Amino acid sequence: MTMAKRDTYTPESLLAVAVEVFNERGYDGTSMEHLSRAAGISKSSIYHHVKGKEELLRLAISRALDGLFAVLDEPGAVEGRAIDRLEHVTRRTVEVLMAELPYVTLLLRVRGNTGTERWAMERRREFDHRVAELLKKAAADGDLRADVDVRLATRLLFGMINSVVEWYRPERGGAPRSADEVAEAVLRTAFMGLRTSR
Amino acid sequence: MTMAKRDTYTPESLLAVAVEVFNERGYDGTSMEHLSRAAGISKSSIYHHVKGKEELLRLAISRALDGLFAVLDEPGAVEGRAIDRLEHVTRRTVEVLMAELPYVTLLLRVRGNTGTERWAMERRREFDHRVAELLKKAAADGDLRADVDVRLATRLLFGMINSVVEWYRPERGGAPRSADEVAEAVLRTAFMGLRTSR
Repeated sequence: MTMAKRDTYTPESLLAVAVEVFNERGYDGTSMEHLSRAAGISKSSIYHHVKGKEELLRLAISRALDGLFAVLDEPGAVEGRAIDRLEHVTRRTVEVLMAELPYVTLLLRVRGNTGTERWAMERRREFDHRVAELLKKAAADGDLRADVDVRLATRLLFGMINSVVEWYRPERGGAPRSADEVAEAVLRTAFMGLRTSR
Repeated sequence: MTMAKRDTYTPESLLAVAVEVFNERGYDGTSMEHLSRAAGISKSSIYHHVKGKEELLRLAISRALDGLFAVLDEPGAVEGRAIDRLEHVTRRTVEVLMAELPYVTLLLRVRGNTGTERWAMERRREFDHRVAELLKKAAADGDLRADVDVRLATRLLFGMINSVVEWYRPERGGAPRSADEVAEAVLRTAFMGLRTSR
């Protein structure tokens, strides 16, 4: 029998545990029982903090979205030439993704039928759309190659950015990579390409 | 009550149904009951074709892997300069991915503890490793930019390629994209970058 520990959780620390369980089991596959076991406190203690697992999902997704949308309001994202704003947004999106890794991972994996999941997917599309608008402006300025269309380019850019959640593991041994190093590699690959100029 | 239909399945057509269910529910979340319902035949009819769901997984994963590994033996992948072989492999990988979309999707999503899942992950790492070797050779030839390291470059390249399973939906309305068009866009983005040269 496991002794339930005293509930010393704050909303933030409980959320961190919940997000870990959601990412491991999937949101659908997670019950309040799983959350209670992972946190080591009773279900009623969890209900003391939140209404239920959907509220934990909403809080976690909000944290990811707040970080991502804040990037779009930074001076580097709103001032200057579209291509430079696009590069700023790309770099900062990678940085937010790495800083908020479990939260953004959850956001990217959510697909489902609860209101919160639909809202998450809607907000994610809105973010992608805002970035696609920057690509369109940069293409209109003649700063993006004309032989890749904007929709495909947007998808490939996010393919590269979002893949970071699949392989970046800050706790793993080996050469640790700074967010800056990864962001720089994404930026160079996406905008200048892997090939040396010929 | 649903009438079970007469079992007119071939191994291939049964596999196609199984892969669809695996991709929708996850391999772990799929029972023989789910497969029986989706196929519209009894569980014992399924057992007439295969030993169980793990054999269906193995067959599906094999189909994806056979397609991918065959690319590495094509003349374009073994003859000539490393950078050209790498571009050939990139283009053909995207094409195989689109031609075998549900099978490669399953391969990319598998993480788990059955022998078949571990084997799938091992073979996938082997494929990534073979491509990473090409990147290393191309870098040694001076054909890849020196300011992105090979491991990061490999991950970002696969990030872009593999993202195709997330958004490519051949059945969807709108401008249909040929495999060729998508492969070309991946190639241009990854190797030449989205920016026009300055």
